[in-house]
Amino acid sequence: MKTERLIYLPLGGAGEVGMNAYVFGWGPEGRERLILVDLGVTFPDMDGAPGVDLILPDVAWLAERADRLEAIFITHAHEDHIGALAHLLPRLKAPVYARRFTALIARMKLEDQGRDPAAVTTVGAWPETVEAGPFTVSFLPVSHSIPESAALVIDTPAGRVVHTGDFKLDGNPLVGEPFDAELWHRVATEAGGVKVLTCDSTNVFVPHPGRSEATLGPAIEELIRGAKGMVAATTFASNVARVRTLAVAARAAGRSVVLLGRAMRRMIGAAQEAGVLTDFPPTIAPEDAEHVSRDNLMLIVTGSQGERRAATAALSRGKYLGFEMKEGDTFLFSSKTIPGNERSVLRIVNAFSEIGVEVVDDRDSRYHVSGHANRPDLEAVHELMKPQILIPMHGEHRMLREHARLAQAKGIASEIVPNGTMVDLTGDAPEIVEYIETGRVYLDGSVLVGAMDGVVRDRIRMAINGHVLVTLIVEDDRLLGEAWAETMGLPQAGRSRKLLAEVIEAEVTEHLDGAGAKTLRDDDRIDEAVKRIVRQAALEEIGKKPEVTVVVSRLSGG
Amino acid sequence: MKTERLIYLPLGGAGEVGMNAYVFGWGPEGRERLILVDLGVTFPDMDGAPGVDLILPDVAWLAERADRLEAIFITHAHEDHIGALAHLLPRLKAPVYARRFTALIARMKLEDQGRDPAAVTTVGAWPETVEAGPFTVSFLPVSHSIPESAALVIDTPAGRVVHTGDFKLDGNPLVGEPFDAELWHRVATEAGGVKVLTCDSTNVFVPHPGRSEATLGPAIEELIRGAKGMVAATTFASNVARVRTLAVAARAAGRSVVLLGRAMRRMIGAAQEAGVLTDFPPTIAPEDAEHVSRDNLMLIVTGSQGERRAATAALSRGKYLGFEMKEGDTFLFSSKTIPGNERSVLRIVNAFSEIGVEVVDDRDSRYHVSGHANRPDLEAVHELMKPQILIPMHGEHRMLREHARLAQAKGIASEIVPNGTMVDLTGDAPEIVEYIETGRVYLDGSVLVGAMDGVVRDRIRMAINGHVLVTLIVEDDRLLGEAWAETMGLPQAGRSRKLLAEVIEAEVTEHLDGAGAKTLRDDDRIDEAVKRIVRQAALEEIGKKPEVTVVVSRLSGG
Repeated sequence: MKTERLIYLPLGGAGEVGMNAYVFGWGPEGRERLILVDLGVTFPDMDGAPGVDLILPDVAWLAERADRLEAIFITHAHEDHIGALAHLLPRLKAPVYARRFTALIARMKLEDQGRDPAAVTTVGAWPETVEAGPFTVSFLPVSHSIPESAALVIDTPAGRVVHTGDFKLDGNPLVGEPFDAELWHRVATEAGGVKVLTCDSTNVFVPHPGRSEATLGPAIEELIRGAKGMVAATTFASNVARVRTLAVAARAAGRSVVLLGRAMRRMIGAAQEAGVLTDFPPTIAPEDAEHVSRDNLMLIVTGSQGERRAATAALSRGKYLGFEMKEGDTFLFSSKTIPGNERSVLRIVNAFSEIGVEVVDDRDSRYHVSGHANRPDLEAVHELMKPQILIPMHGEHRMLREHARLAQAKGIASEIVPNGTMVDLTGDAPEIVEYIETGRVYLDGSVLVGAMDGVVRDRIRMAINGHVLVTLIVEDDRLLGEAWAETMGLPQAGRSRKLLAEVIEAEVTEHLDGAGAKTLRDDDRIDEAVKRIVRQAALEEIGKKPEVTVVVSRLSGG
Repeated sequence: MKTERLIYLPLGGAGEVGMNAYVFGWGPEGRERLILVDLGVTFPDMDGAPGVDLILPDVAWLAERADRLEAIFITHAHEDHIGALAHLLPRLKAPVYARRFTALIARMKLEDQGRDPAAVTTVGAWPETVEAGPFTVSFLPVSHSIPESAALVIDTPAGRVVHTGDFKLDGNPLVGEPFDAELWHRVATEAGGVKVLTCDSTNVFVPHPGRSEATLGPAIEELIRGAKGMVAATTFASNVARVRTLAVAARAAGRSVVLLGRAMRRMIGAAQEAGVLTDFPPTIAPEDAEHVSRDNLMLIVTGSQGERRAATAALSRGKYLGFEMKEGDTFLFSSKTIPGNERSVLRIVNAFSEIGVEVVDDRDSRYHVSGHANRPDLEAVHELMKPQILIPMHGEHRMLREHARLAQAKGIASEIVPNGTMVDLTGDAPEIVEYIETGRVYLDGSVLVGAMDGVVRDRIRMAINGHVLVTLIVEDDRLLGEAWAETMGLPQAGRSRKLLAEVIEAEVTEHLDGAGAKTLRDDDRIDEAVKRIVRQAALEEIGKKPEVTVVVSRLSGG
């Protein structure tokens, strides 16, 4: 009989920033009772997943073991931690636990998808606990940029695990609880100390200590006071702390505040409803802003990452809900541009430049601070928690590597554990025991599509190569009339100056007219021959090999 | 009769970094004799131009006036200044002038495209001049990162124009001529001074003075000396200075140097052939490297921007030409990541991290310096040249704006002149006189396609929405059999769990069976009806509205 063991298996979030999903288990090998921490999304781009709405972790491994899943815990309400819950919960069928505000957002998301919000149970902060099979779990308050962010204290038969979630060391985060070193110290020293710290790695390469959210207000207020005309600022809608900082600064500078963008109004509304944001300054509705002079207005808007449909992009292109940025106005990016979004953000900055709007960005870090612990902050937490084992999570592979190295340099056992790697944490050091097939699932319209299913691959191929359709009618083993070709996403004509479609039609027709009954009786042979001819003709005419779809219609003998 | 005037019209490069193409003209309005400075490309991305090979400036305005075009001058051999020449020269039919190395590259490019290299004339540096209609043009050596970079001194009846091209203030650029302030001062003070300075704006937001290429060698050598295993480094192939710096440092650290990547071998070979790179250290061929131990090897490779097919990406995925990066090896990005390429570069960094390769990047600016003048350097050049008018060029709109502001603050007349804006420079200050239709042309395979032609737009739509083909056979005003549907880039099945193609076939068939002869006689009506039905059915099944192509085959009466 196998002995029992403590396992850890990231299904998402370890090897990327996004779609966090971490499994812990305890029990005999292959029969561990499981819990899942977080179930987030990541955002697609044209390069990798054109037309896709959201990217979710592939939880097939967990879904096959749903009977062993005791519970799902959500650390906080950011999309990369909660965004996949409503889409994947039906496959996992486990109770969901979260603190009040996070639970409220989770229920809203479940209702949006037509699912039962009763799956979510609200839990109070440490020392309140939830029993989940062999695990006793408690939500330990931690400073981040959204209300009620929590680390998890997961007591297991093998010892205490602390899973940091997203955090920074902020004594005055303005929204959510300050980082309470004494509380964390207590968690670290009782119950035999911390066996395992699974720890946020996002900012391990940032060499200086992180700054407090509270340091931003005066600089932003000064900027607004010095501005002429209208002022607008953007940040992540879910960065509730920053939205508040911007609004408070605007009010202090004597301006009326308008929140623009559905996501922002919804997030702030939810925080107020949950009672975790009682000191948000008064705002005015967009439709009331016409009574306020432009010099007295401050817009706080969505779209800090350059999203085409969000308020920031709309304002850079012209009017949005009656608001229009004009020469001499000021636009503040109180945000960091996520790698991959630079071009979209710069497109907006340049569009504002064309209007004559003063754009202020994060170039000198005056108007933005990160919500994640920097390298010295991580070292401070290592010191404070004194874990036996440190597992870096929430980061790209290079960040996990650096974080593991940092821990090892201090004599803490550590291992890089990317998505799909199962480690046994029972002993003194982590031991890799298995590799699980993991990956990504796309929410494409209303359908979940496997990233490897070829659906999006075909779209990328059409985008790169264009698409040619050839239709043929075959009657009695001979081509009836001529082949018909349509091209999509290809130049009309190339080298010969004849229409590409006509060149293709002529070559296909000629070939099939000369082909024997053996070919014309066999759809696969026709398909293969036509594709070859089309690609060759296109290569000669336009220098590209397009995707080809062949439709053969057969008329039963005349 | 109109008086003569000096005009300036950027067709590319002003409002973007890339595809430089600047027109100057002198003469009566509408009959100015013209010259073109540079004819470069910019590089496409999946977001804006999937499948496109190169982006070129739309020179339609100039092509229509080719009879007035006296000459084309190429300042240096970087792709964003020379890359479109071979593709567009047939439409412009003007003599091309460049210094020796640039001319060599230009001729190679013309030959690659099967064009006559004799179109290019080699010109010596200042004080040698070329007469081009009313213009007298001279190539003024300037420090950049490729041999024989030049500014242009363009003497016109209205006074002297200095067009900086790309430049930095480097007293020891190692490749190409040092910046010679005395020479520039002479240019500025003779011939009545500088009337117009058209000036590189790329680094106007960089607050500190630029550093010399010569400062990099010792740091890179130290890095290589400290490295175990194999070392590889990447930079732009066309950054000849950096390739040399890397090779010299590697040799000094006792390693054999291998150049990998066609572009790099070709560029270095051309520079050696032109006699402008006589001190490049000896290299060994890739096939000879098997006799050298890994600790004694240094690879210098293409692909610094994460290009999927280049050597850097190939090495991160596994072997390339027999070379394989292993745990403990070092990979140096001696380059800046261009906005938009971050995600591709990070994909490679993380792939190296998975192998265990130490990746060193430009985070602390030890291993890379820019080839462009920073803000204080630009101010120094303003001082040195004392132009009456400054026109910012080579930069995004926000950079042009900042640069114009910088000049105006010093009392220099300046104007933001983005692509397509014609200014009259005859008077004391620039005066906008006309807006020209400009834009981009795509090299797509072997065909030039207008960016607004809809070809690439259709590809983007297929990538986002997928593509459905419906084929129908109509005989005697009725549908023969059933409609046939094929889907590409769409999930096979959605809400009803039936195949999407079958749902579409059933709905289209049902509709057309019930439609009157009036509809079935009219291809446009069929097309419209089928598209509507397909989009509605797909929206219900999979939550997306695909692109639809309908092919109607008509059989003449049975």
